[in-house]
Amino acid sequence: MADILHRIGVEQSSPQKVYDALTTLDGLSGWWAEKTTGNPDLGGVIAFQFAAGAFDMKVTELDPGRLVRWEVVAGPPEWVGTTVHWDLRQEGDSAIVLFKHEGWREQVEFMNHCSTKWATFLMSLKQLLETGQGAPDPLDVRISDWH
Amino acid sequence: MADILHRIGVEQSSPQKVYDALTTLDGLSGWWAEKTTGNPDLGGVIAFQFAAGAFDMKVTELDPGRLVRWEVVAGPPEWVGTTVHWDLRQEGDSAIVLFKHEGWREQVEFMNHCSTKWATFLMSLKQLLETGQGAPDPLDVRISDWH
Repeated sequence: MADILHRIGVEQSSPQKVYDALTTLDGLSGWWAEKTTGNPDLGGVIAFQFAAGAFDMKVTELDPGRLVRWEVVAGPPEWVGTTVHWDLRQEGDSAIVLFKHEGWREQVEFMNHCSTKWATFLMSLKQLLETGQGAPDPLDVRISDWH
Repeated sequence: MADILHRIGVEQSSPQKVYDALTTLDGLSGWWAEKTTGNPDLGGVIAFQFAAGAFDMKVTELDPGRLVRWEVVAGPPEWVGTTVHWDLRQEGDSAIVLFKHEGWREQVEFMNHCSTKWATFLMSLKQLLETGQGAPDPLDVRISDWH
């Protein structure tokens, strides 16, 4: 099993503001995929549509301002069954975001790609909260031929 | 043991050009740390000086246009003894860069930070080769309070 890890700090922000960007369709469509639909409440399934594919995430745990957990219930075979963990806390005037995409069965090349891509989307989340403008798909940063 | 993985594609480039940016002081100072000194040849030690700290990398393996391996011989305690793997290949008009920072003893929070930070430096490498201008320290992208 292998994991993708990341950490960002969102300046002049709060864990609650990050939480809102992770748990509302409006927030999610502002930094990850413009085409975000479904139910972001506990037990609901959120559907993310990207140029390169689609994922469905089941919301398995929510603690306002502290954590969000998703389970991938549809999408690329390497993703299905993996889990996405968001842990949030305040540090000075920054909201610290600890991210983990856990449970990859193998270290395939697609995992390398997804790790870099997650980093650029986390930077998009940071930009959204700091400037009001993220870079969600299809406006996302292109990192390679795999997009 | 845990690893950091990334993958980028450098457009209109070649594995040899990426290799040059990884194996010359001029190349390395163009995307990673402006203050890069030492000996980038096989068996040599390269010293990278950042605002937030410094690392020494021993060059343990070189295969022109194909791969570069480093071993961290000085730096933060979490880094010492870990290895950095660069694998390069051509795909269409892109040079594909597979990156692995291998051998972390524990999944500490600093590993999350380094994973995101590596992604932004890989994007700096891509920019350097595509535009002639990277974002090496101290001009690097700030991702959090840890810089």
